[in-house]
Amino acid sequence: MCKMKSSSLAVLLLISSPLSAWAGDDAVTAVTNKAAIDLVQSHANYLWTLVAAALVFFMQAGFAMVEAGFTRAKSAVNIMMKNLMDFSMGTIAFWAVGFGLMFGVSETGWFGTSGFFLSDFSPGGDPWVLAFWMFQVVFCATAATIVSGAMAERTRFTGYLAYSVLISAVVYPVFGSWAWGSLFNGNGWLENLGFIDFAGSTVVHSVGGWAALAGSIVLGPRLGKYGKDGNIKPILGHNIPLAALGVFILWLGWFGFNPGSTTAADKSIAMIFVNTNLAAAAGAVAAMMTSWFKFGKPEVSMSLNGALAGLVGITAGCANVLPTSALVIGAVAGVLVVFSVLFFDRIKVDDPVGAISVHGVCGAWGTLAAGIFNIGGTSAGIIAVQLTGIVSCFVWTFCAAFVVFKMIHMTIGLRVSPEEEAEGLDYTEHAGNAYADFQISTYIQH
Amino acid sequence: MCKMKSSSLAVLLLISSPLSAWAGDDAVTAVTNKAAIDLVQSHANYLWTLVAAALVFFMQAGFAMVEAGFTRAKSAVNIMMKNLMDFSMGTIAFWAVGFGLMFGVSETGWFGTSGFFLSDFSPGGDPWVLAFWMFQVVFCATAATIVSGAMAERTRFTGYLAYSVLISAVVYPVFGSWAWGSLFNGNGWLENLGFIDFAGSTVVHSVGGWAALAGSIVLGPRLGKYGKDGNIKPILGHNIPLAALGVFILWLGWFGFNPGSTTAADKSIAMIFVNTNLAAAAGAVAAMMTSWFKFGKPEVSMSLNGALAGLVGITAGCANVLPTSALVIGAVAGVLVVFSVLFFDRIKVDDPVGAISVHGVCGAWGTLAAGIFNIGGTSAGIIAVQLTGIVSCFVWTFCAAFVVFKMIHMTIGLRVSPEEEAEGLDYTEHAGNAYADFQISTYIQH
Amino acid sequence: MCKMKSSSLAVLLLISSPLSAWAGDDAVTAVTNKAAIDLVQSHANYLWTLVAAALVFFMQAGFAMVEAGFTRAKSAVNIMMKNLMDFSMGTIAFWAVGFGLMFGVSETGWFGTSGFFLSDFSPGGDPWVLAFWMFQVVFCATAATIVSGAMAERTRFTGYLAYSVLISAVVYPVFGSWAWGSLFNGNGWLENLGFIDFAGSTVVHSVGGWAALAGSIVLGPRLGKYGKDGNIKPILGHNIPLAALGVFILWLGWFGFNPGSTTAADKSIAMIFVNTNLAAAAGAVAAMMTSWFKFGKPEVSMSLNGALAGLVGITAGCANVLPTSALVIGAVAGVLVVFSVLFFDRIKVDDPVGAISVHGVCGAWGTLAAGIFNIGGTSAGIIAVQLTGIVSCFVWTFCAAFVVFKMIHMTIGLRVSPEEEAEGLDYTEHAGNAYADFQISTYIQH
Repeated sequence: MCKMKSSSLAVLLLISSPLSAWAGDDAVTAVTNKAAIDLVQSHANYLWTLVAAALVFFMQAGFAMVEAGFTRAKSAVNIMMKNLMDFSMGTIAFWAVGFGLMFGVSETGWFGTSGFFLSDFSPGGDPWVLAFWMFQVVFCATAATIVSGAMAERTRFTGYLAYSVLISAVVYPVFGSWAWGSLFNGNGWLENLGFIDFAGSTVVHSVGGWAALAGSIVLGPRLGKYGKDGNIKPILGHNIPLAALGVFILWLGWFGFNPGSTTAADKSIAMIFVNTNLAAAAGAVAAMMTSWFKFGKPEVSMSLNGALAGLVGITAGCANVLPTSALVIGAVAGVLVVFSVLFFDRIKVDDPVGAISVHGVCGAWGTLAAGIFNIGGTSAGIIAVQLTGIVSCFVWTFCAAFVVFKMIHMTIGLRVSPEEEAEGLDYTEHAGNAYADFQISTYIQH
Repeated sequence: MCKMKSSSLAVLLLISSPLSAWAGDDAVTAVTNKAAIDLVQSHANYLWTLVAAALVFFMQAGFAMVEAGFTRAKSAVNIMMKNLMDFSMGTIAFWAVGFGLMFGVSETGWFGTSGFFLSDFSPGGDPWVLAFWMFQVVFCATAATIVSGAMAERTRFTGYLAYSVLISAVVYPVFGSWAWGSLFNGNGWLENLGFIDFAGSTVVHSVGGWAALAGSIVLGPRLGKYGKDGNIKPILGHNIPLAALGVFILWLGWFGFNPGSTTAADKSIAMIFVNTNLAAAAGAVAAMMTSWFKFGKPEVSMSLNGALAGLVGITAGCANVLPTSALVIGAVAGVLVVFSVLFFDRIKVDDPVGAISVHGVCGAWGTLAAGIFNIGGTSAGIIAVQLTGIVSCFVWTFCAAFVVFKMIHMTIGLRVSPEEEAEGLDYTEHAGNAYADFQISTYIQH
Repeated sequence: MCKMKSSSLAVLLLISSPLSAWAGDDAVTAVTNKAAIDLVQSHANYLWTLVAAALVFFMQAGFAMVEAGFTRAKSAVNIMMKNLMDFSMGTIAFWAVGFGLMFGVSETGWFGTSGFFLSDFSPGGDPWVLAFWMFQVVFCATAATIVSGAMAERTRFTGYLAYSVLISAVVYPVFGSWAWGSLFNGNGWLENLGFIDFAGSTVVHSVGGWAALAGSIVLGPRLGKYGKDGNIKPILGHNIPLAALGVFILWLGWFGFNPGSTTAADKSIAMIFVNTNLAAAAGAVAAMMTSWFKFGKPEVSMSLNGALAGLVGITAGCANVLPTSALVIGAVAGVLVVFSVLFFDRIKVDDPVGAISVHGVCGAWGTLAAGIFNIGGTSAGIIAVQLTGIVSCFVWTFCAAFVVFKMIHMTIGLRVSPEEEAEGLDYTEHAGNAYADFQISTYIQH
């Protein structure tokens, strides 16, 4: 606990120069003052980057609530465990391996080769490495946890843990290094092409979404989801207020995710805040309207996913498009997410929360839109680069994740038995019960 | 993603002057340094204003949880939809119309006439407009969403959407322009009188509360709430932990709402934080005590509303009263809210969550109290101005909202049918079910 | 509402000097600029300290959700009331008495004797006192609310209120004054020995944990928890998603708790963020692994408590150890918490949420670890001082709290009757019902 008075502290923090010397050496004083000003600005940058990281961390709670709310009561413990553990194991994996692959010195433009175990930082070294790591680890965790929703209610817990480590250590960081390059020499091949993805529509959300697609395909649908007659059985979420709370938490967290990606406290964060909010609002309204036309009623899960779709959509271009464009980008994402969810259901890819559509499809849309609505103008070249980024993300992530899930499937096992699935993962995987005092219709009594 | 090292970034951000020139031109250097210092301070102001806006945004989640928790399970989906949509549609309405009416150039002191569609902002323009808009849009949304609680469980969803757009585009901004005037020329008629309402006890909370009163009157009470024999039937909330979580979220959000209203990172925020916290604590304790004396037990919904009452009460005077006064203001609000809730129930105004009492009545109290406990002294003149603000808010808001609700009632319809109400809005308005896996006693089985 | 443009505001805030004078008096200008720089830095310090306080405040919601989630549905209203009221009454008690005892001028090193009722602050006085108070009151509330969990489901509400006032006014502040001394003259006896407890593993968490131990012992276990044959009956928590949400909220709040303890916006917060996050992640993973080995399944309540154990463990040394050490400290805490929970169950100390183990035991471990892994090196002397702090905390807190609880027991009563306990505190203490629309198996029907 530091309890000095703030004003005296400030004096200590700044480079001090004895008053008596000032009159005689004004140039030195001016330089000293300039350094002091820079130091205060850098303190503000640390503060913003780390507060933003805290907000992004809180998105873990949002994802957990959305996934639990949109699935059945008998899986809620398992979902809490998955979300807690993909963050916890992911943190350790990103600390040990992922950060070095993504932001270490990259000779080739394909991955970094230094900075493992935070070895770039030593006592007395530049603490910016730590602030930057903190902001990056919560981004990595976002990509990892997106996948959880698409694989809900049927994935073996050990298999999920193995996946969490591999995406956080390898799959996410390698793609990240292409687009956001090294911390030190900035040399990712996509970045070198001029790829625009300010806060990660592709780098974070599409990576999560395409890995979710791979996971969902390898796993197969939940029991009873698709009838032999081609019927699609709706499996209702068990706690819509919890899911809505999750969406509000995610929206809040995005105010760290997008403007925090400046990693600097400057005036540019204002437009990023506004764009983020307008796109989310437009996405929610557009998805509600679309669901209303399609189903005859304004549907809650589509509306909630519409807000998320708008947020994912604006993530790439949040610093590069005008507010009016943000509104359009969000609205398109809101329409898109409804049709995308219906599409994946039609091709029997069972994604209980719509993660593939929200993060994969709308992430791709947002990345394209960042090129189309670019504040500095667009061109065929810019669009081509954006498409290159979108496609390379799909190819790398889907293939790498597919291999990862297949390997897990063939070794420790990816899917629980039909009996376990019927009983619910809470009981079979964790000997737990999310709602011990409630009468739950989907529980098998013991 | 910006990944430059923070220290080098700071140098770039500041107005740079080559070192070699400094010794020869110290006066210029000093001016340059002064501008650089101002710039860093302005970065801190942006940062605080926008972080505070994020906290105020999160109050939407708080309102949603409070409203859902204090009402029945069969309306929870509808409540999530209302809260998501009053924010989303409100954001778009405030962007298109409301901000211009409230903060545009006002010749008359009655409303602004510029800045619609954020047209004040252009590429290369002053981004402060955007930061300020972001802070204001979440305030507007707070006023809008307050009304939702008082109209819970019986309002047609389309009618609610129409109301949301109208309060965000017109009702709230017009009153706001009287009290907080234009962003550019500061010319509201109430403001010109010296009206004290620092963070909006009247501008935000009473506007919400009196609109809620109008809505509740036009709608009428829920089925079965008031018996023919004069009996008042308690309709219990279905999820008290959720409601309590909502109150904690709102309390947190108020640490953006009140001190963020400085829109500047300066030392004055310290007293505003302390006042906000003391008033909330005193409100909770006072309401609990009052409920204990009145009902024989310390009652949870009154205690939770007491905290909110204290927060609403201190909002007007948070920057203008001493901490001890804040404690008194909060305690009075806590007592007041209990009697007010009982009063509105006695006159058969059905307000499921107590929104009229918490926001309308305690907002009026807080505005009066800001005059009484004013740190610079009080006077009959100050009290008269405060009363003028309170009364003009009631007259404008109640009348305008009454007309809005009557018009909706006569056109698209404001209230669902008795059959729909009995069945619950979740099913009839959204084809939804908040708790599909739970045995719910208030559901009608399908 | 302040609506001036940020840039003009910044100019007003800084000490202004007419441009015309600058050229003629450069030394004065330089001094003026230096003061202006210090002022901006102090604004950043206020901002960070108060934003961190808001995050720590939010931990109240986290504690409430964790406690409710891990206990039965029939006590959830009571738990909300306890958490609301220990914060609200605690705020008032700390304002009136506690802050003065803890941070007032201390002649003896054993407690302070000034600053009661925030009397250090007067209009025109230094607002840092207010910012500092705000940060401290949420720390005090954390210590107070930790105890709630260990005493859940059987404590008389009036007795709990009396305890809340006494721990916030006396028990916590007195120990705090030993370790963190006065705000003004820094004279606590433990502090003078060189005791390391940066953010309060001992000062906050062990105080809470040992008071919880005293409370749990004086109360005795819940009915039916320990059979006559030595059997331990598991009493399941009723809402695991809520408990998990609580843990995520607490983790978020710790990003205010630990780095906010700098009370200054400087670069040192980066390492504190990283250490906090690594320890939490390691704690969660270690506790999950330990529960897996012990029980055959990865258990959710142990895993969640493991994250909290890691957070408590790193709190003392967060600014004084390297990231790798933080990982080790968190992992050890995660193992320790599982064995500690089992130990207290074996000796029939009924702690429904594991508060004694998480906060008491892991707080002691963290304090010892801060000495062992101290970045500046360790020594027998350092370890001896840390042990002195740990032991003196246990002796003071356990004894003081034991006396407090015994006095409450002998006067207004600490425990409800067996009939009331069977029926549930929600109904008997508050005439309430947390889940009125749900079929709850542990409710007695009325």
